[in-house]
Amino acid sequence: MSPHAPTTGRLLIACPDARGIVAVVAGFIAEHGGNLLHSEQHTDVEHGEFFMRVEFDLAGCDLNQSNFADTWGPVAARYGMQWRAQWGDQIKRIAICVGTQPHCLQDLIWRWQAGDLRIDIPIIISNHTTLEPLARQAGISFQHLPIDGDKPAQEKRIADTLKSVNADTVILARYMQILSGEFLRSIDIPIINIHHSFLPAFAGGDPYRQAYDRGVKIIGATSHYVTEELDAGPIIVQAVIDVSHRHSVADLRRKGRDLERMVLSRAVRRHVEDKLLTSANKTVVFE
Amino acid sequence: MSPHAPTTGRLLIACPDARGIVAVVAGFIAEHGGNLLHSEQHTDVEHGEFFMRVEFDLAGCDLNQSNFADTWGPVAARYGMQWRAQWGDQIKRIAICVGTQPHCLQDLIWRWQAGDLRIDIPIIISNHTTLEPLARQAGISFQHLPIDGDKPAQEKRIADTLKSVNADTVILARYMQILSGEFLRSIDIPIINIHHSFLPAFAGGDPYRQAYDRGVKIIGATSHYVTEELDAGPIIVQAVIDVSHRHSVADLRRKGRDLERMVLSRAVRRHVEDKLLTSANKTVVFE
Amino acid sequence: MSPHAPTTGRLLIACPDARGIVAVVAGFIAEHGGNLLHSEQHTDVEHGEFFMRVEFDLAGCDLNQSNFADTWGPVAARYGMQWRAQWGDQIKRIAICVGTQPHCLQDLIWRWQAGDLRIDIPIIISNHTTLEPLARQAGISFQHLPIDGDKPAQEKRIADTLKSVNADTVILARYMQILSGEFLRSIDIPIINIHHSFLPAFAGGDPYRQAYDRGVKIIGATSHYVTEELDAGPIIVQAVIDVSHRHSVADLRRKGRDLERMVLSRAVRRHVEDKLLTSANKTVVFE
Amino acid sequence: MSPHAPTTGRLLIACPDARGIVAVVAGFIAEHGGNLLHSEQHTDVEHGEFFMRVEFDLAGCDLNQSNFADTWGPVAARYGMQWRAQWGDQIKRIAICVGTQPHCLQDLIWRWQAGDLRIDIPIIISNHTTLEPLARQAGISFQHLPIDGDKPAQEKRIADTLKSVNADTVILARYMQILSGEFLRSIDIPIINIHHSFLPAFAGGDPYRQAYDRGVKIIGATSHYVTEELDAGPIIVQAVIDVSHRHSVADLRRKGRDLERMVLSRAVRRHVEDKLLTSANKTVVFE
Repeated sequence: MSPHAPTTGRLLIACPDARGIVAVVAGFIAEHGGNLLHSEQHTDVEHGEFFMRVEFDLAGCDLNQSNFADTWGPVAARYGMQWRAQWGDQIKRIAICVGTQPHCLQDLIWRWQAGDLRIDIPIIISNHTTLEPLARQAGISFQHLPIDGDKPAQEKRIADTLKSVNADTVILARYMQILSGEFLRSIDIPIINIHHSFLPAFAGGDPYRQAYDRGVKIIGATSHYVTEELDAGPIIVQAVIDVSHRHSVADLRRKGRDLERMVLSRAVRRHVEDKLLTSANKTVVFE
Repeated sequence: MSPHAPTTGRLLIACPDARGIVAVVAGFIAEHGGNLLHSEQHTDVEHGEFFMRVEFDLAGCDLNQSNFADTWGPVAARYGMQWRAQWGDQIKRIAICVGTQPHCLQDLIWRWQAGDLRIDIPIIISNHTTLEPLARQAGISFQHLPIDGDKPAQEKRIADTLKSVNADTVILARYMQILSGEFLRSIDIPIINIHHSFLPAFAGGDPYRQAYDRGVKIIGATSHYVTEELDAGPIIVQAVIDVSHRHSVADLRRKGRDLERMVLSRAVRRHVEDKLLTSANKTVVFE
Repeated sequence: MSPHAPTTGRLLIACPDARGIVAVVAGFIAEHGGNLLHSEQHTDVEHGEFFMRVEFDLAGCDLNQSNFADTWGPVAARYGMQWRAQWGDQIKRIAICVGTQPHCLQDLIWRWQAGDLRIDIPIIISNHTTLEPLARQAGISFQHLPIDGDKPAQEKRIADTLKSVNADTVILARYMQILSGEFLRSIDIPIINIHHSFLPAFAGGDPYRQAYDRGVKIIGATSHYVTEELDAGPIIVQAVIDVSHRHSVADLRRKGRDLERMVLSRAVRRHVEDKLLTSANKTVVFE
Repeated sequence: MSPHAPTTGRLLIACPDARGIVAVVAGFIAEHGGNLLHSEQHTDVEHGEFFMRVEFDLAGCDLNQSNFADTWGPVAARYGMQWRAQWGDQIKRIAICVGTQPHCLQDLIWRWQAGDLRIDIPIIISNHTTLEPLARQAGISFQHLPIDGDKPAQEKRIADTLKSVNADTVILARYMQILSGEFLRSIDIPIINIHHSFLPAFAGGDPYRQAYDRGVKIIGATSHYVTEELDAGPIIVQAVIDVSHRHSVADLRRKGRDLERMVLSRAVRRHVEDKLLTSANKTVVFE
């Protein structure tokens, strides 16, 4: 059974460490008829923080989306838990923002079409029209929101669009625009970015040129949640590939494209399967 | 805190899957005053098998090596559990069998000397005397047990030696001899081998020559628990490295040595930290 | 400048080793006004074989496709050279055979559309119709050649099709049919296959199931030239990815798809850029 | 035959690109009876620079260390070449500077003892005495040169020591002191450093703590030639390893040690086998 099956519930918890929390969580699920399929707990002893993810079979379980908050709430309150629950038949609604480069978008569309990513893509948004045909061909709505010299206004239109399609996640698939803190606060849903370098090396613009100029022997890509500080949010996935003096900047870009789409899709998968918690600007990644 | 600290207990469980086991285990530890530091559960839904590892703080916990079997036994019996518990102050007693090649032995000795591997090495056994100086230099007893044309007799002497030093694990650090099923059954403690190929490719003798002749572009090393069938036991760790047509067999051997010692030491670490269960000729590796 | 630019010539040579060959080759190119951009020579001293690849700027060079054989022939004959020359404006004509799985085909089409692979794809051939829409959408001819119980006849039709489109290379992008020696001899052009395992491990059918059953910690993919012996031809590219006990066979297949398309596209790139020589069932890969 | 055999000569060349250089070089070697075993040429077309490395069999060759400069000099002058030649029986004299951490030193000693690195180690220098026993045990001279508050004076003593033992290379095997530009200019021989991060990420002090705080999913190590700008010299080798939220700073350090010694030893090997040229603060690495 996949860790993201329509017949399972998933509960993620972060709270101050205390004795007996695993027993309480596992006991609660068992009492309500849920069989645990995967459970993993991590305690950050340095900071006294407790993290847990459980996935349980919904067959024979009396917990569901409508009764969970009431049932679980008092327990969670006792331990000061931050938590979120996902139910198997819930599918994340992911809006994708793109610029002019197709590879990351195309890869996400492929995986979605192949059934590898169980998501809905209600909208693809771009400040260009370059990728509109790709969206149309896949049968996905495309919204052209040009900047036209007024970025705050454009960001407002993006926020409205996200709201209108009820998106719960945004993927920046090489969107190439810096989003304002105001925008981030206004939408208040997770945003996943792909940066084309091994962060924190080569943050900012044209990282392949930077990597070429520095003469590195390995290039990387980094997917992270977006925060106000550019390229500094919690890292979800990183991967690298060897390069040599024989590679031009164009070669690095070409090789990097493969990395970028691989890294972004892995990050999206982790997000979609509810395997990520963030704490202190880092991710806890459950396997 | 390291996952292998002297102040923690570790419990590993394998049993048929059933509802509520996690709650039972976590509840048991909590009732006895133990705080869970790490817990991970995996259910193999295909085979209906349940695997779990918990690590708990012994401070304030009334469980210990002498009372655990009696206290935990009835619970374990109810679920048909196979289990083993390790207590922080227990240190594995690891005998190392070697041939004439020093690199894997040397690496283990280094890590042991550096405090990276918290183990005792009561004896190094070899059918050659080549590595005796290395053992002596490290202050470790060395037992020369030549085969002298009578392998069963030599294996008997190995078994006696292992027993006399009270070893609980054997590492074959390039021992280069096939051990008989009779020997394996007689000692009945885990044996970890390093095979110098990416198993199941190139099982048997001279795998680097085989790899060279096949013209592979990647070579590997595999550490596994030893079973009666040669090179076919549960795999613990594998790793690989790129090679090219420029590499001679000698180059592959040289590059392979780095892989072998890395892979073997990772496997030993997993074993020493009680992160391994075996089932159906595979390992479950807890993180 | 890319190593595969339309303004360069490429000459590949294999012959018995002899003193002075590099000077002869480099001198010949220089005498004819060609400036060497890349040159690499490898001598297999074990077998006394000499391999060389040179790439030279055609600007100011009086060598070309029509005069080269006559000019170079006598030199090559003196050293018993096997050689082939490629001229910048020649584009390989690559026929792609597929089954029902789209990922490798899709990836090749995409790189071709993005300009990453400078090739012509005159035809996509399949024994199924599943991928016809994908071919059509990309504007590539699709030929459905079902087996219908008579494989020799179908192979004959494939051979005729390859001839009719003047293909110089065949890519088996998960074609999933074993080709007969008769067929291979009849077409006599290079065939590149992608095998979904780390060969020679798990040759034959359903390698992901085999890998799952063996409990390996790494899975791989291998691209190789096809020879009569199944899965035993010269290896061009291999790559691997980590897996764990948590991964089902379906997970291995999913993760493997990423490997397969990456490995196949790298192999095709090496072939297209004339960076491969084969000798003694191995490839010499020039960088 | 190894690319570093006592029976071969090696010539490295960097010069402005010009037509026919490969022919000139190869012709020169051939005229003097040398058979080329490996040759590789790279032209940086962006900067119009030509790089070449040839390795040739000395058997039957009338070139040698004493006549080469006179014979080759006029040819080299014609093309404005920078060049260096190494003769098979020349062995690099490598001084190693260390601090208190043994792993990199130990690894180098080991490879030297195993015959993997064909070098002389005339001296090990440290500002501490911690690693003196390690040096003594290996039979290598150890020079304790404490800083005692006067770094210029200490650097002067290092320079004198290097000169007295006729060192041609310095390895900083976790020396942990920044060397002054004055010192670097005074010794004027290559210095290889290992930095415990994936440069340019986490330059400067305590990179594992920096990596931990940033929450990266991969850590790296970088070996580079030392220049006046800290951690900014030409990169020779880089490698990385995956980490997760489960790893403490101590875990990163432990895992990093394996990377560091691997990366440093690969860099030293490239240097010792005369496979490195530097240009514009980058390395050209011949295979």
